[in-house]
Amino acid sequence: MPKTIKKVGVLTSGGDSPGMNAAIRSVVRTCAYHNIECIGIYRGYQGMIEGDFKEMGPRSVNNIVNKGGTILKSARSTEFRTPEGREKAHENLLKAGIDALVVIGGDGTFTGGLLFNNEFNFPVMGIPGTIDNDIFGTSHTLGYDTALNTVVDVIDKIRDTASSHNRLFFVEVMGRDAGHIALNAGIGAGAEEILIPEEDLGLERLLESLQKSKASGKSSSIVVIAEGDKIGKNVFELKDYVDANLPEYDVRVSVLGHMQRGGSPSCFDRVLASRLGVKAVESLIEGKSSYMVGLQNDKVTLTPLEQAIKGKTEIDRELLRVSDIMST
Amino acid sequence: MPKTIKKVGVLTSGGDSPGMNAAIRSVVRTCAYHNIECIGIYRGYQGMIEGDFKEMGPRSVNNIVNKGGTILKSARSTEFRTPEGREKAHENLLKAGIDALVVIGGDGTFTGGLLFNNEFNFPVMGIPGTIDNDIFGTSHTLGYDTALNTVVDVIDKIRDTASSHNRLFFVEVMGRDAGHIALNAGIGAGAEEILIPEEDLGLERLLESLQKSKASGKSSSIVVIAEGDKIGKNVFELKDYVDANLPEYDVRVSVLGHMQRGGSPSCFDRVLASRLGVKAVESLIEGKSSYMVGLQNDKVTLTPLEQAIKGKTEIDRELLRVSDIMST
Amino acid sequence: MPKTIKKVGVLTSGGDSPGMNAAIRSVVRTCAYHNIECIGIYRGYQGMIEGDFKEMGPRSVNNIVNKGGTILKSARSTEFRTPEGREKAHENLLKAGIDALVVIGGDGTFTGGLLFNNEFNFPVMGIPGTIDNDIFGTSHTLGYDTALNTVVDVIDKIRDTASSHNRLFFVEVMGRDAGHIALNAGIGAGAEEILIPEEDLGLERLLESLQKSKASGKSSSIVVIAEGDKIGKNVFELKDYVDANLPEYDVRVSVLGHMQRGGSPSCFDRVLASRLGVKAVESLIEGKSSYMVGLQNDKVTLTPLEQAIKGKTEIDRELLRVSDIMST
Amino acid sequence: MPKTIKKVGVLTSGGDSPGMNAAIRSVVRTCAYHNIECIGIYRGYQGMIEGDFKEMGPRSVNNIVNKGGTILKSARSTEFRTPEGREKAHENLLKAGIDALVVIGGDGTFTGGLLFNNEFNFPVMGIPGTIDNDIFGTSHTLGYDTALNTVVDVIDKIRDTASSHNRLFFVEVMGRDAGHIALNAGIGAGAEEILIPEEDLGLERLLESLQKSKASGKSSSIVVIAEGDKIGKNVFELKDYVDANLPEYDVRVSVLGHMQRGGSPSCFDRVLASRLGVKAVESLIEGKSSYMVGLQNDKVTLTPLEQAIKGKTEIDRELLRVSDIMST
Repeated sequence: MPKTIKKVGVLTSGGDSPGMNAAIRSVVRTCAYHNIECIGIYRGYQGMIEGDFKEMGPRSVNNIVNKGGTILKSARSTEFRTPEGREKAHENLLKAGIDALVVIGGDGTFTGGLLFNNEFNFPVMGIPGTIDNDIFGTSHTLGYDTALNTVVDVIDKIRDTASSHNRLFFVEVMGRDAGHIALNAGIGAGAEEILIPEEDLGLERLLESLQKSKASGKSSSIVVIAEGDKIGKNVFELKDYVDANLPEYDVRVSVLGHMQRGGSPSCFDRVLASRLGVKAVESLIEGKSSYMVGLQNDKVTLTPLEQAIKGKTEIDRELLRVSDIMST
Repeated sequence: MPKTIKKVGVLTSGGDSPGMNAAIRSVVRTCAYHNIECIGIYRGYQGMIEGDFKEMGPRSVNNIVNKGGTILKSARSTEFRTPEGREKAHENLLKAGIDALVVIGGDGTFTGGLLFNNEFNFPVMGIPGTIDNDIFGTSHTLGYDTALNTVVDVIDKIRDTASSHNRLFFVEVMGRDAGHIALNAGIGAGAEEILIPEEDLGLERLLESLQKSKASGKSSSIVVIAEGDKIGKNVFELKDYVDANLPEYDVRVSVLGHMQRGGSPSCFDRVLASRLGVKAVESLIEGKSSYMVGLQNDKVTLTPLEQAIKGKTEIDRELLRVSDIMST
Repeated sequence: MPKTIKKVGVLTSGGDSPGMNAAIRSVVRTCAYHNIECIGIYRGYQGMIEGDFKEMGPRSVNNIVNKGGTILKSARSTEFRTPEGREKAHENLLKAGIDALVVIGGDGTFTGGLLFNNEFNFPVMGIPGTIDNDIFGTSHTLGYDTALNTVVDVIDKIRDTASSHNRLFFVEVMGRDAGHIALNAGIGAGAEEILIPEEDLGLERLLESLQKSKASGKSSSIVVIAEGDKIGKNVFELKDYVDANLPEYDVRVSVLGHMQRGGSPSCFDRVLASRLGVKAVESLIEGKSSYMVGLQNDKVTLTPLEQAIKGKTEIDRELLRVSDIMST
Repeated sequence: MPKTIKKVGVLTSGGDSPGMNAAIRSVVRTCAYHNIECIGIYRGYQGMIEGDFKEMGPRSVNNIVNKGGTILKSARSTEFRTPEGREKAHENLLKAGIDALVVIGGDGTFTGGLLFNNEFNFPVMGIPGTIDNDIFGTSHTLGYDTALNTVVDVIDKIRDTASSHNRLFFVEVMGRDAGHIALNAGIGAGAEEILIPEEDLGLERLLESLQKSKASGKSSSIVVIAEGDKIGKNVFELKDYVDANLPEYDVRVSVLGHMQRGGSPSCFDRVLASRLGVKAVESLIEGKSSYMVGLQNDKVTLTPLEQAIKGKTEIDRELLRVSDIMST
């Protein structure tokens, strides 16, 4: 029979993403619903080491379901990578009577959580929170859907000015290791070409595509580029390259940057956060540990943290084809 | 071997929804990609009867991926319900050389399309476009995701004033037959109670819930109600009932209405529209007919129109539980 | 020489409006800048009577400049209308060492503040916060600009569906006594006709205008109506009247309601709130009392509260003409 | 008695800005209202030289009041800077029967228009359209208010992530010659420091301010920088400088770029555009020429184009003080 859980700690770690607050709220209220205490841990694992804790009742999370960022703050902790750091963190949890953890974040967050679980046999559940959608075991990470909407909104604005001036815009979006944002937001924003880390189209293909686009009567074009694309040039070098090779284009660059991490979460992200928070807490209550809660085929599922960390998400090749057809 | 398709007609019918334009664009460009002509049919089946057609090349759908409404307009056609009306429509299609149809809309649209197919053996593919998400055979209809975001944005604004004044708001959202919008937007907006057609909680339970909410220290509350809920009172009668029974509440009503149908589509709806448009046209090319393209487990699938019309979507009971826990 | 101000109380009262939080923040930080203490008074005059006070340092108003509603809450106080109520309130202020007040709200708020000043010779400054823009002595009240943007955003959405279906929409906006929102948002949203309290066009004129609109080739129309218009019919009766007299129209109604009061304030409202808060506190420091701070010709000015209450704002007749020309 | 105007040409030139379409619509409909023909000239002065004209009736501008960019497109024309180019343009206008011009744009647009008027005694009216608000003779240029809202929306998102991570963000906004956007959006977004071209605070002051900010307990900070600020370092060099001198800060950079020019115009910009378009056309009818229509003290006024070009707008020094107090 599982050890009864009496007090759950919750933290956010790594890059923040919209929906983290909704997930915190869900964890807090699910605890309250089951008459379990809930403790907020500030600044991720660093706050665990420093004992930066705060009791959270159901009213402490009023009116945060729609707020971007994380009220628990986030931070990197080099100290938590040392056995001494983790030892200190463990002592703090014991001292506070916390007997299980929900950690919200990405790969790094889960790696820390799994290590902690292995060392101290401490129950840990992970909730995937990152805009990049690069976590194995869930079709959607918290914040991804919101980031897509943020990106298409911004590109819609850029298109206004692009089409008024018959210009070509290179728009760089987040995604160092994964092209999910670029691919989906690129299709959503009607981009003529999309460059992602998963596929190296090559510079020749880009030039050809732009020439074809011009020939087909398009007067302005948007090219969306993921940070980590494999074309071997950053977005400014790319501009120089096109300037040199296609002088008929008036090329501009826009790097969207950190705004993609912020903003009020979409309805999808709020609902997902609510569902995942419930599942995380209730799984702890059932005695489970070292799983990530996620969404698969529209259902909430559990994936061992180890798999979530090691697995690799794939982009949907169908979307590459759709993108290609849409730029006809 | 299937008859070669040379000219595809596309129309929108029934209530409009965000993403319809993105779907039209996708149909038009997929046709162009495969060197098939595409004809836009205005005002749904009525325009088919009146021969209100327009040739659409790939540039004719520039800059509409992000526009709400439908550039092909929509209308109800009583004439199309008569054999004479459909006969006239069929003649117009033949005269224009159109040899297949893509119809975008809901149940009524599909019923018309299926009848037309049955009578004239005319290839028809359906794309589900309605904000209500009440179509069997697809996890998401076009416009549903956008409508959810519109609703939570508005309720976020209402909550500002609700919590400034410690008020109770009844917010009526669309969904005569299905509670999908109410249930998801209600969770997303942090509603204290959600009333949907699929479940009759009863007035007693509502009063109890509101009293519990007050007792738990909540100073303001939002109740989301689907148009077609089964509680037997409209939203204004409900206000009167609560006024009479819980005089400590200052109750206000907001009926969101038609704004829910409009607005620029979310990234999700734009990508979905693009995918469904490709599949619809390519299925026609492959000789298929009388299917609805849809999304199931994140994959684009085909469902016979007959099933799509007869089948009944179910709300996710898990969400009822999540909603209940979230209002702790 | 003026009495030195050491502690300022700030409250919000009446209907809330976007920008109130930005004004509270400005009052709090201007106090801190001048080394004056600041006390937040909850729930307006009612909180003054109940002694519901809270010290506010400059960090207590972090991250509220962009939040709708009012963190100090608002309430109506019938008790404050009695001499006993005001006496109690005065004692509470004295007990707390508060020696001046900034009251944020509309006519009713200023009336209460002026009465209080008259009875107890207590320094009071008013900041105009209401979406209706119906306060004399300022070209803009806090929240008005935001409300205009909210209204045009919603009507843009309604127009999507209106023009997809060739419909006529009656949209009711706030403004019981003043047509500012209807007139400006109506022009901004491209309304074909605008009905406001300041002018009774009559039903005949409305019908004529709608017929002219149809004849000119417009396929859909929006009519914006202020709550308090003088046409003698509410928006639903109006629909019935047009249904009866212009059966060629498919008429729908949308009542925007309380969402107009909420939402993140526009940049204009945030800057205005910041400017008015500075002026209010610095005027108190200079020994002034019983003024409203406001904006006139883009400059921050003072208007005696008495005038602000009694004076009547006028709509800009030029705008009526512009509206008329725009609906050509 | 003024020559009767029978046909008005309208063009947009220079950088596009939100509200240009609303101004085009207003010019077109005011012409229709007065039974004057209206001709749209594509791509600014270049289209005038190439005779790229199109007749515009009142229905041709349906549903553009809310669209960003300019349906008439904009372009730079080096040819128009030559007497031969202008001669060609003049001939095209005569050939088309156009007897007056409305030009929408900024300084460069007005300079071209004035020259044209001087050379050919051709009636010209200017409408100020630029997001920078750097035109003398109007308190607001078209697009400025919208750009402010776009900027604060984006900085609100950046603040979410800044405050989750206790970071310092340098945000670069448009304004090569004028700090209006930086100053107003900086106050609106709650920036701790604002760097503008009109004032060189110096690097020392910036460091001091950041240190003070940290000491006062602020955990995150936003610094807004106009492109043309006088601090002598671009935004990336500034980051390096602060990294070197205040290592306790985790500094990030965001360059907002062209998105600031796009988007659906705010209600203010739509109403302003409508008012200015009416005035421009009616002034031409009255026989006036070589004026810019603008807004002064909330009234529509005329300023000789020559003054509009030569005059210099000033930032409001009061706002510098407000900004300073707000960052307490």
